[in-house]
Amino acid sequence: MRDLSGDLRHLSVNSATVRKQLALPDMIEACARRGIGIIDPWRDQVQAAGLDAIARQLKDAGIALSGYCRGGFFPAADAAGLAAALEDNRRAVDEAKALGAPCLVLVVGSLPGALAGKPVSKDIALARAQVLDGIAATLDYARGVGMSLALEPLHPMQAAERACVNTLEQALDICDALDPGRTGALGVALDAYHVWWDPKLSAQIARAGRERLLAYHVCDWLVPTRDLVNDRGMMGDGIIELRKLRALVEGAGYAGPIEAEIFSDSWWSRPADEVLDTCIERYRTVV
Amino acid sequence: MRDLSGDLRHLSVNSATVRKQLALPDMIEACARRGIGIIDPWRDQVQAAGLDAIARQLKDAGIALSGYCRGGFFPAADAAGLAAALEDNRRAVDEAKALGAPCLVLVVGSLPGALAGKPVSKDIALARAQVLDGIAATLDYARGVGMSLALEPLHPMQAAERACVNTLEQALDICDALDPGRTGALGVALDAYHVWWDPKLSAQIARAGRERLLAYHVCDWLVPTRDLVNDRGMMGDGIIELRKLRALVEGAGYAGPIEAEIFSDSWWSRPADEVLDTCIERYRTVV
Repeated sequence: MRDLSGDLRHLSVNSATVRKQLALPDMIEACARRGIGIIDPWRDQVQAAGLDAIARQLKDAGIALSGYCRGGFFPAADAAGLAAALEDNRRAVDEAKALGAPCLVLVVGSLPGALAGKPVSKDIALARAQVLDGIAATLDYARGVGMSLALEPLHPMQAAERACVNTLEQALDICDALDPGRTGALGVALDAYHVWWDPKLSAQIARAGRERLLAYHVCDWLVPTRDLVNDRGMMGDGIIELRKLRALVEGAGYAGPIEAEIFSDSWWSRPADEVLDTCIERYRTVV
Repeated sequence: MRDLSGDLRHLSVNSATVRKQLALPDMIEACARRGIGIIDPWRDQVQAAGLDAIARQLKDAGIALSGYCRGGFFPAADAAGLAAALEDNRRAVDEAKALGAPCLVLVVGSLPGALAGKPVSKDIALARAQVLDGIAATLDYARGVGMSLALEPLHPMQAAERACVNTLEQALDICDALDPGRTGALGVALDAYHVWWDPKLSAQIARAGRERLLAYHVCDWLVPTRDLVNDRGMMGDGIIELRKLRALVEGAGYAGPIEAEIFSDSWWSRPADEVLDTCIERYRTVV
């Protein structure tokens, strides 16, 4: 297991962690100032600042990416919606390539309309079939571009709105179906928040192995949790056994960045400097 | 698949559904008045009214039980706590017997202290081991009394505080370990709210079969869900495919009651008559 206490070279920060305080160019600067050399930017933040400008800024600052957030949201209520999602995912692959990301993270989507609070279908089996087709089509395109896809299983409490892939086992079954050769083109983004509760987690991490583990995200699960989306905890403030989990992930061969991704009304209300400094401190002492 | 539209003989109502409006004796009366012949009472409500008084009232009113809520909460921070939990579960078994319940529902517990907002451990693997031991000990006692135990897997969003058994597969693995003969002494209480999202649900319901399916609870998953505990929906108001799910459960051999169990600040704020009448209407038309 790697020693993280000495330096920050494996630390990545997801741009959503301070999205309410800092536009992406300012977030990149704030990271560079404190020696954080890896980030994972969200697509809407990149678009707000301009893809080329961000690509240049990252290069000039010597900041690498741990991933690009995000593609996905494949299910739709009609053929036009399905086609539009595929087109959008091809653009996301191209953007990830332009930014030099190692992978495009996929939040796959679920019941059409549910994210907007107006589900037009209850058929999660259909959504899962559409997701499988969407990943297959995007994988074809991404292989041509040379971009890996990192399927992110989301916590079951987000199964209606955000992702109908809800366990690591389910994600790996999809990977095995679409990339049986374990080529590295398709794998998973493992987020401690989404998977810590899973009784099969240890076995499935071992099953994933180095070829499938494309990203590892951390935050913490608060007790009690007061919101299903925006009440994640800072590492160390909740009940996830982060050190034990990292031992499993690294034991399976993962040697990439440790990405702090904290969606939290509480942390969004604090100064960005405090949030980033706390990420660094907890990365050294807790993760 | 049974036709529920014609009469109420398979409908059960969980007493928690109107727990903020009605004490248990009044809830039993309100059910009897509208032809609801089955209930599932909570233990604290029975204790508030007196076990003998409730047993008499149920008999006089001709009301049967679909289960008794609840035993469980096995994990503890020390040996005294573990022993106290076992003692409490033996009492719950005896109470279930006195009331003529077909099974004692087990919400197994998880990290000690977490339900009170002060977890004293993060070790969910330890909690799971304590749960296995606790069920094994309680099963020994319950077999002697002739009371079945119905293990209820809870939604993963309740994995820290309420139950570290979070999928039907995990619950069935425990059943197979402790009751390999499928004797009927140990099975599951399947609640649509907790399991609807599970990609392995269909296969695991088939695996459970008639011998393991001891209870079936319904409500609905709202989009969006605003609280992790008390924002369940009335059947038909959310996105669970209740008819499809009942077809799976009955296809696997289940022929028992359909129990409406709705924890909801919204429904708790309405008149009990309205809530119970709505349960009846949705039972006939949606479930």
